[in-house]
Amino acid sequence: MSKVAKKPEKETLVLGLDPGTNVMGYAIIAVRGARPTLIQYGVIHLGKYGDHALKLKKIFERVLSLVEEYKPDHVALEAPFYGKNVQSMLKLGRAQGVAMSAALYREVPITEYAPKKVKQSVTGNGNASKEQVAKMLMQVFNIKEQPKLLDASDALAVALCHYYQQGDITAAKQAKKTTTWTDYFKANPERIQ
Amino acid sequence: MSKVAKKPEKETLVLGLDPGTNVMGYAIIAVRGARPTLIQYGVIHLGKYGDHALKLKKIFERVLSLVEEYKPDHVALEAPFYGKNVQSMLKLGRAQGVAMSAALYREVPITEYAPKKVKQSVTGNGNASKEQVAKMLMQVFNIKEQPKLLDASDALAVALCHYYQQGDITAAKQAKKTTTWTDYFKANPERIQ
Repeated sequence: MSKVAKKPEKETLVLGLDPGTNVMGYAIIAVRGARPTLIQYGVIHLGKYGDHALKLKKIFERVLSLVEEYKPDHVALEAPFYGKNVQSMLKLGRAQGVAMSAALYREVPITEYAPKKVKQSVTGNGNASKEQVAKMLMQVFNIKEQPKLLDASDALAVALCHYYQQGDITAAKQAKKTTTWTDYFKANPERIQ
Repeated sequence: MSKVAKKPEKETLVLGLDPGTNVMGYAIIAVRGARPTLIQYGVIHLGKYGDHALKLKKIFERVLSLVEEYKPDHVALEAPFYGKNVQSMLKLGRAQGVAMSAALYREVPITEYAPKKVKQSVTGNGNASKEQVAKMLMQVFNIKEQPKLLDASDALAVALCHYYQQGDITAAKQAKKTTTWTDYFKANPERIQ
């Protein structure tokens, strides 16, 4: 037995977000070493707010409160890059932009993942159904009951995808030089206006 | 001559914004009674930030600092509802969403105007050229030199459009019941979650 006490591993929190114009899914996972655990997940219903600006305000406030309450080290965003038409893409872009603002405002770095990438990463199949993704998440996080709201599952999936992509993100974070905007600006002084 | 001293008219500030993914125009106008005056206008260059998230962060920070410095009573947003393709609309939507967040966060009400509406309101012609709009703005605000940056002119135009649409906005504001989110929630308690 080694006499050197093992340094306790730092816990890293990832906030997964699946912004939409009517429902926004969110999930917080914690990673200590190689074990991801579910802290909280749910949805923010926006359909009841008829006014578009009110929906955006609600998204901003809720994401900001999640960021301030949990102080995540990273935000993982599910971000489709295509859509039915320019109208729906403009609305989706606004919802994404508002959610991103709340994270950027508190200096939390963001990584975007396309839906196909999330499915591939979580289930091994880029064309997996939402139900297949949910089933895999239940196994990984030891969730007993099938999640009723698939938007919350999507947010949980993108958070898990980020963890898988980063490998052990705690180790990755120590190795990476630029993880926050402050670090980025320090490393790239010529990009500051 | 009346002996009753006339109550000084309250000054109302309008922040005009023309969000884009490479350049964002902004303009602050003050309205006292029926006279709009130009306080400041300019552009925020975003092209130098290669990273998309950095651009969004910059938009949020700059709009928030304009809102905090000038404390506008209203934000007027130039918001095209169409675009070349879904990709460009997603990016534009994000830029709009980020700019809107900064205003919503500080409880400043926002009104959106389509580009055609702005041109119609300012020049009387919905198909006016950018140069014609700039010329009219120079007359209204007594600007001596042709503005070099048309994006700044667009932001000034949307601020002026808002003033024209509201008539005397000081009077309009007194008459209107819901101008801020706080007022809105007070007036619509059933919409609070």
